[in-house]
Amino acid sequence: MNTLGISTSEIIRISGQGTETFNDLLVKEEPLEIRIGYGKETKREEFSLAVTMRTPGADEELARGFLFSEGIVKVPSDILSAKYCMQAKQPENTLKVELKNDVLFDPNKFKRHFYATSSCGVCGKAALEELAIELPDVTNHSHHISKTTILNLSNQLKEHQNTFKHTGGLHAAALFELGGELIMLREDIGRHNALDKLIGVASVKGIDLSNKILWLSGRLGFEMIQKSAMASIKFIVALGAPSSLAVDLADQQNITLIGFLKNESFNIYSGKENVILNE
Amino acid sequence: MNTLGISTSEIIRISGQGTETFNDLLVKEEPLEIRIGYGKETKREEFSLAVTMRTPGADEELARGFLFSEGIVKVPSDILSAKYCMQAKQPENTLKVELKNDVLFDPNKFKRHFYATSSCGVCGKAALEELAIELPDVTNHSHHISKTTILNLSNQLKEHQNTFKHTGGLHAAALFELGGELIMLREDIGRHNALDKLIGVASVKGIDLSNKILWLSGRLGFEMIQKSAMASIKFIVALGAPSSLAVDLADQQNITLIGFLKNESFNIYSGKENVILNE
Repeated sequence: MNTLGISTSEIIRISGQGTETFNDLLVKEEPLEIRIGYGKETKREEFSLAVTMRTPGADEELARGFLFSEGIVKVPSDILSAKYCMQAKQPENTLKVELKNDVLFDPNKFKRHFYATSSCGVCGKAALEELAIELPDVTNHSHHISKTTILNLSNQLKEHQNTFKHTGGLHAAALFELGGELIMLREDIGRHNALDKLIGVASVKGIDLSNKILWLSGRLGFEMIQKSAMASIKFIVALGAPSSLAVDLADQQNITLIGFLKNESFNIYSGKENVILNE
Repeated sequence: MNTLGISTSEIIRISGQGTETFNDLLVKEEPLEIRIGYGKETKREEFSLAVTMRTPGADEELARGFLFSEGIVKVPSDILSAKYCMQAKQPENTLKVELKNDVLFDPNKFKRHFYATSSCGVCGKAALEELAIELPDVTNHSHHISKTTILNLSNQLKEHQNTFKHTGGLHAAALFELGGELIMLREDIGRHNALDKLIGVASVKGIDLSNKILWLSGRLGFEMIQKSAMASIKFIVALGAPSSLAVDLADQQNITLIGFLKNESFNIYSGKENVILNE
């Protein structure tokens, strides 16, 4: 792997040894649009098949494997070429796969089959810009959470995850008061679903999420921050690591983003001014 | 959480203490179709918004949260009701959300925005049946892998994951010979992408995947097994746990599925006849 897949970000690590600021490595996350060229020689057509959030660096391999594992091509020779689309807005995030003339491809079959966005520009920046239109306005707030509160969150969950701990296959999303009291926990095989369940309950119960803490069991990709921002969540604490795009969006949305939470340490990726380190 | 989200499966655990057969708990994974009812009183319409693979048990919460976090509704009162669709083929996996008359909903905006299948029946069984049409024919094979080979796989990867180990945010997929020699490793923020990259290289290089071992860093959901089956993979070894639907599909496709791989132990979920336990 080359350095295409990594970016750096200045973070703060809080541990028993104190507070340390340094440049950490983040895994890069950017959308890749896969386009298909198909049809007879006399009438070639183009179709935008899918947009997938991926780590850049092996895009041709990814596109070829995607087409194969989704049953669009059967043998490698079905593909004439797989190249970045130089006339696209974001060539490095747009890959066009040309199918052989005689490969049957029916775009209607795939129109609703893949997760895909309707946006044209697909680079991280374009996605972020578009997002800003839909997301709630960014507001300043005066809420804070303390180091002690953050370090104690996971302990409270252990008894509540009893039912599922033996399956080992679940993601969890939990909601806490700013003081650290557990409000509720939801679990699902999909991390997005666990978060959506939590947001669903909150909406029915009329819980204001802007002054709560969201705790997540897994890694933090762009979509988890996007969903949180839609729900006006301002504090996210996760056991896993965030992606580069997740940190960018959290920054933009004034969200305090904490990752790599362990028994005695955690990293602050954004919104450090809302964390009280001496309490 | 209730027992809706769990199923049991007879598995074999291999460890230093020997071989043990018992009923293990698996997290359930089934597709949920979310339908939207919208429009003026005089002309109500229905639209199938999305299908998501989820753990059953809090479906109304999930649907409400999904609509909220994706920006389709702004306030809880935008939703009149969220109920299972009794006239659907699989009522327990089909939830219809009725929007208030005056909520603007444009289905065209969402036609390509979510991951969704074009299938009508959405329960696990229906999905599996449909899948069987597209997947390669199930064939018997005479390949085997030994206990010692399985336990040694992860060790070989440690030196290759150096570049990325500090980011902590990556999934990995690796390919091994049946004897345990590492062929290649691919990484990505998305587990599906890591697998697609691997399958993409194999297709270009003409590598026959039916006599190789696929090693995966994460959990095993339905889609990972689906992709593997499309690529004729017969041996999957993962660090994480499989879902109920993943085990069902592996069984059906004659795939040997091993999970919870640790230094000295692992679980066999399907295809035990292709594992040599005394070597």
